[in-house]
Amino acid sequence: MKVNGKHYRTVWLDGGTVKMINQPLLPHRFEVFECPTHRDTAEAIRTMVVRGAGAIGTAAGYGMAQAALEAADADPHAFLRQAAETLRRTRPTAQNLFYAIDRVLAAVDGVDDPAALRRLAVAEAQAISDEDAEAARRIGEYGEPLIRDGATVLTHCNAGWLAFADWGTALSPVYAAVRAGKTVRVLADETRPRSQGARLTAWELMAEGVDVTIIADNAAGHYLSRGQVDLVITGADRIAANGDVANKIGTYEKAVLAHAHGVPFYVAAPRSTFDSDCSAGTDIPIEQRCGDEVLYAYGWTDEGEWGRVRIAPPGAKAGNPAFDVTPARYITGLITEVGVVPATVDAVAEMLARP
Amino acid sequence: MKVNGKHYRTVWLDGGTVKMINQPLLPHRFEVFECPTHRDTAEAIRTMVVRGAGAIGTAAGYGMAQAALEAADADPHAFLRQAAETLRRTRPTAQNLFYAIDRVLAAVDGVDDPAALRRLAVAEAQAISDEDAEAARRIGEYGEPLIRDGATVLTHCNAGWLAFADWGTALSPVYAAVRAGKTVRVLADETRPRSQGARLTAWELMAEGVDVTIIADNAAGHYLSRGQVDLVITGADRIAANGDVANKIGTYEKAVLAHAHGVPFYVAAPRSTFDSDCSAGTDIPIEQRCGDEVLYAYGWTDEGEWGRVRIAPPGAKAGNPAFDVTPARYITGLITEVGVVPATVDAVAEMLARP
Repeated sequence: MKVNGKHYRTVWLDGGTVKMINQPLLPHRFEVFECPTHRDTAEAIRTMVVRGAGAIGTAAGYGMAQAALEAADADPHAFLRQAAETLRRTRPTAQNLFYAIDRVLAAVDGVDDPAALRRLAVAEAQAISDEDAEAARRIGEYGEPLIRDGATVLTHCNAGWLAFADWGTALSPVYAAVRAGKTVRVLADETRPRSQGARLTAWELMAEGVDVTIIADNAAGHYLSRGQVDLVITGADRIAANGDVANKIGTYEKAVLAHAHGVPFYVAAPRSTFDSDCSAGTDIPIEQRCGDEVLYAYGWTDEGEWGRVRIAPPGAKAGNPAFDVTPARYITGLITEVGVVPATVDAVAEMLARP
Repeated sequence: MKVNGKHYRTVWLDGGTVKMINQPLLPHRFEVFECPTHRDTAEAIRTMVVRGAGAIGTAAGYGMAQAALEAADADPHAFLRQAAETLRRTRPTAQNLFYAIDRVLAAVDGVDDPAALRRLAVAEAQAISDEDAEAARRIGEYGEPLIRDGATVLTHCNAGWLAFADWGTALSPVYAAVRAGKTVRVLADETRPRSQGARLTAWELMAEGVDVTIIADNAAGHYLSRGQVDLVITGADRIAANGDVANKIGTYEKAVLAHAHGVPFYVAAPRSTFDSDCSAGTDIPIEQRCGDEVLYAYGWTDEGEWGRVRIAPPGAKAGNPAFDVTPARYITGLITEVGVVPATVDAVAEMLARP
């Protein structure tokens, strides 16, 4: 997608440096963050300089490519295994992270020639990024017919192009519908505690000229109860074999509410987000993040500086689960790069087995 | 309740001045806000220097008493009718506002002696405040048995003593249970956009030594899904004759989620919050507030100053309904000062008719 007239991906590899859009600074400042080593890339994933399912996967793939470039000729595989561990420890819920790491490891498995190993690792990381962008584009094509002209779409968190290498998942059908000439209005949940909806989803959609209204997470039920939402689309951080979805905290609340109102609830995600090793959502580990994210709010001060305000009393404690699990029964359909399928064991298995 | 060892009510009348705890500054600064005239009191209600069902009612009653003190001897009733209009226009959803204004008007109806009129208006306003505090205390007594030893109570917004003349409604049973020696843990929804949960509920409970954990509004569903909530108690801003409840935006979401998990959902409110003129929740007007409340977050800067940060992109728009309506079918019971009753037309009518 374009920023100030120039095309950007969310994360890219430039020589041995991983570069990424610095997402916590958006929308107030557009800055490219540089990670000279795979350890810097891991730290950027952990601290959420880069976030979003596909973007995390792409960054992790490039981090593995960096590790291949950094490895001594003597025993590159040991170094790569160590780098994989470092990267795996950054975000426990995000499936695309593990997917990308494992793909780069597999691509160089048994390769002894140091130059070939480096070339293969970089090529595989690039392929992961390219496939992620292409999958997101196709998700838009498959999701577009679900959005009628004049529809209002509710979304949660940011599963737009900033969350992937390009295009996004939940927002890709919206972009496709708008490009097809439809009028689409988006209600964007603020998405506390990190406000990805108010910051990133609103910014992305405004940049593309899409009509977007930010609402407090608390208000989604009100709009649903007034018949002002036609469908809900969210992304996913990991999807179990039975169609249960782990996604940004609050997704589950919106799914239960959509169900109570008979409003379709779709989850858009590429196949790289599915984890066949998790038979159900209860198997998915839920990341607990620092309570400060809840006790403070972060943004731009009236003086134009990046800052924070403390909302809660001194000494207060907070619980901060970063994700929740939405059971498959609340999900109308999964929008993937090979089509829209029901959230059932059989449909998911068949979809993952397609060429 | 006590602040720094001294007993305070939320709002009180001192001569002709209405004084109130300045709630937007809490918990970071404890300050008394002074309203020299009834117009200042109206403005303080509108801008939410005072907020919460009972506290708004108490402030409005005192505002009417102020108007009586301000009125010229010639035609005090015309002045009072005008003052009533000014006060009525401040917050459209809060039933206690209308209740208190009408009570003071009724108390001086047909009274021609200026001195008697002033005395009666002040006495009625004081009675409203005293009855509010006493009703809240009794709500605690009736609600206390619903909380078992070791329970976790989820609450939304602030319906503690800061929302009433004293004691509170949703939190009054919690205070009663703790004073009865029970161990109670409270999960406090942050309650965006104005963060009354993170600011006020956490502050109140911590001051009383109650174990409280602040969570993002998005996280309530997660805790419910993990079986970590025993019951939900919220307050109400207006309750219709059929038991439908208007309360802080997001209350409806929590009610639907509690229902989905079979967790009891109680609404605690005095009889002054019931509006027999509204047959159902759809009759209750929902206040729309300025979008800036959503686009910004307010709190204390790292330098110790009161400030705000802008979360959303420049030019973004926001929807900001301040309340939502929870249908009676999601409500396990209404905790009032005369007992706990089901949220049905007949039970509400019978309860309101009790002496």
